[in-house]
Amino acid sequence: NLGDIDSCIQDLIDLTEDYKQLEATHKDYTVQLEQLSELQTKCVKNLSHQRYRLGIIKSTLKKYSVTVLIKPKDESEKEKFELLNKDLMRRQAQLNEMEESLPKKSGTYLKIILGSVNVSFLNKQERFKYKDDYEKFKLALSAIAMGLSVTNLIANLRILDLAFVFLMVWYYCTLTIRESILRVNGSRIKGWWRAHHFISTALSAVLLTWPDSTTYHLFRHQLMWFYVYISFVQYLQFRYQQGCLYRLKALGERHDMDITIEGFHSWMWRGLSFLLPFLYLGYFYQLYNAWALYQLSFHPGSEWQIPVLSFLFLILFLGNTLTTSMVIPQKLRD
Amino acid sequence: NLGDIDSCIQDLIDLTEDYKQLEATHKDYTVQLEQLSELQTKCVKNLSHQRYRLGIIKSTLKKYSVTVLIKPKDESEKEKFELLNKDLMRRQAQLNEMEESLPKKSGTYLKIILGSVNVSFLNKQERFKYKDDYEKFKLALSAIAMGLSVTNLIANLRILDLAFVFLMVWYYCTLTIRESILRVNGSRIKGWWRAHHFISTALSAVLLTWPDSTTYHLFRHQLMWFYVYISFVQYLQFRYQQGCLYRLKALGERHDMDITIEGFHSWMWRGLSFLLPFLYLGYFYQLYNAWALYQLSFHPGSEWQIPVLSFLFLILFLGNTLTTSMVIPQKLRD
Ligand SMILES: CC(C)(COP(=O)(O)OP(=O)(O)OC[C@H]1O[C@@H](n2cnc3c(N)ncnc32)[C@H](O)[C@@H]1OP(=O)(O)O)[C@@H](O)C(=O)NCCC(=O)NCCS
Ligand SMILES: CC(C)(COP(=O)(O)OP(=O)(O)OC[C@H]1O[C@@H](n2cnc3c(N)ncnc32)[C@H](O)[C@@H]1OP(=O)(O)O)[C@@H](O)C(=O)NCCC(=O)NCCS
Repeated sequence: NLGDIDSCIQDLIDLTEDYKQLEATHKDYTVQLEQLSELQTKCVKNLSHQRYRLGIIKSTLKKYSVTVLIKPKDESEKEKFELLNKDLMRRQAQLNEMEESLPKKSGTYLKIILGSVNVSFLNKQERFKYKDDYEKFKLALSAIAMGLSVTNLIANLRILDLAFVFLMVWYYCTLTIRESILRVNGSRIKGWWRAHHFISTALSAVLLTWPDSTTYHLFRHQLMWFYVYISFVQYLQFRYQQGCLYRLKALGERHDMDITIEGFHSWMWRGLSFLLPFLYLGYFYQLYNAWALYQLSFHPGSEWQIPVLSFLFLILFLGNTLTTSMVIPQKLRD
Repeated sequence: NLGDIDSCIQDLIDLTEDYKQLEATHKDYTVQLEQLSELQTKCVKNLSHQRYRLGIIKSTLKKYSVTVLIKPKDESEKEKFELLNKDLMRRQAQLNEMEESLPKKSGTYLKIILGSVNVSFLNKQERFKYKDDYEKFKLALSAIAMGLSVTNLIANLRILDLAFVFLMVWYYCTLTIRESILRVNGSRIKGWWRAHHFISTALSAVLLTWPDSTTYHLFRHQLMWFYVYISFVQYLQFRYQQGCLYRLKALGERHDMDITIEGFHSWMWRGLSFLLPFLYLGYFYQLYNAWALYQLSFHPGSEWQIPVLSFLFLILFLGNTLTTSMVIPQKLRD
């Protein structure tokens, strides 16, 4: 018994050796942490100063750009002008690259939801992992939504309907948070897709308040089929986005750029042209929902939810169609 | 004109000086960032190893604790045993302190909502600021809730009712996120208060689905008064929590501990005994809601929401009363 206590004491003494080392490492760490935060503040400050002064130069140049380009006094003026512009562009690209390893500020929405917590990643791998997670999260929730909406088509339980719609509120709300984090970390996700998820949250919230009435039952089947279809499209989208993500990552790691960028583009166009018909079909389904709800709003037992939902579906149809249609010419230009 | 371009060029050349410096600082920064992340990983690994081995020693000791303490072979055995225990406690406290400046892992809930983003603060000031923000956020939303519920008592617009309830869903949901972040950063907030906010989210969601029926109108007034009262209690709570927070901060910064800790305790008890009657009144209001809803569930037009809400209010009453009542003896012991 006493022997056991002695062996415990011996163990603790052994551990103390390791602990001493850990203490030293930790001391080093805290000192460096302090230094790093100073360097960071300095970089952020100087960078924003550079940005500010570049901005002034650019706006001065802009004022003269029309006269210089249309009727330059001489060739040398035009040349100088173009050279200067190129220099400015290069400098700005350099600053952008620097910014990648510096913390970025959250937008208002994130500040309200999360408070002043720093959500920026300081390196590429973490950023990649985050995006990858985001896509997988969407896929997992689409699978669940598919399962629930099929169940709802077979069964007809009010409570299950509500659980499904509440899941949708939660899902779209979570998406807006994750997308804001992606945005802070430099994703070029278009404003519309984020707006889309805000509108979808609102739409689901309105659905949640729609009572269990005759009109609801007239629309219920169409709604559940819509979610089945959307979940399926989500799966196709996942395949496409995941493909882009991994190929772009591989591109960034290898350096034989010429061949692979072409490879990437051809893959992307194939993926896109496979995906687009399914997307447009989905958008027409949204238009069809808007139309059906519009018709339903003349039903004698119509609730206020019906015209509101009709309007929201119409907005979704318009926004999606416009945004997706604009992506194609934009990608052709790049 | 040409002169302007020349002066722009001169400006850019001047800027380049600064830029070179920034580049050097940034280079330093990235090197240090890399080093820091290595040190960090090392600390985290060694720390968890220390924890693991301390755990083994502790569990070995525990096996013998009964025999040693009740019928020790001799005094020296008991002494050794107690000394060892003290050493273990001290070591654990040291490890805890070290952990404060290391990143902590998020729990499952945060991982699902936010994905793998790191939400831990590495220093006290940031942690303090975050908590301060959290309290102010609650206050601001209580004020809005108060305004809306008073408006709802005067006006009687279905859409405003729903907007209010939807705000509550969003508010409680946001609280659960912020509280999870606080928890990651070492707040000792009790499990019940977090559960309380999850249950309140569910309760509001159920309220959202309650149709605009006779029974709803029978209960509506009482509900809005409840929220008016709760918002008022929130304000009192804010004063108390904010007082604790700032006093504890001041305590941590000064070092004449003996006087101020006593001062803090006397302040805390005064604050608490002012607050408690209002809290218990709120809890009885919850019980009263549960009771009124239970009665209402026998109404001919009763919906499924009514017994569910009654049950949820009952749970809130029980959990709040128990937890708050347990806080008092616990604080007396400290
Ligand atoms: C049309 C589409 C395939 C083009 O995708 P793309 O090739 O990635 O488009 P872009 O090059 O403009 O993408 C820019 C960024 O936005 C992201 N993005 C594009 N569409 C997105 C969407 N719908 N949701 C989230 N992120 C999106 C991309 O991943 C990319 O991110 P990155 O900067 O971090 O790499 C895509 O926008 C899409 O799938 N849209 C359909 C969405 C939809 O309609 N949903 C409703 C279902 S009916
Ligand atoms: C009873 C009460 C006043 C005690 O507060 P306290 O003195 O801070 O209690 P503790 O010492 O146990 O607090 C431990 C931690 O939990 C936090 N905490 C306590 N109650 C909390 C609550 N209701 N919400 C959020 N955080 C809370 C404290 O701020 C403290 O945080 P820290 O570790 O970051 O410093 C407090 O729990 C309270 O206000 N409860 C009532 C809440 C309520 O009933 N709400 C419904 C309205 S009817």
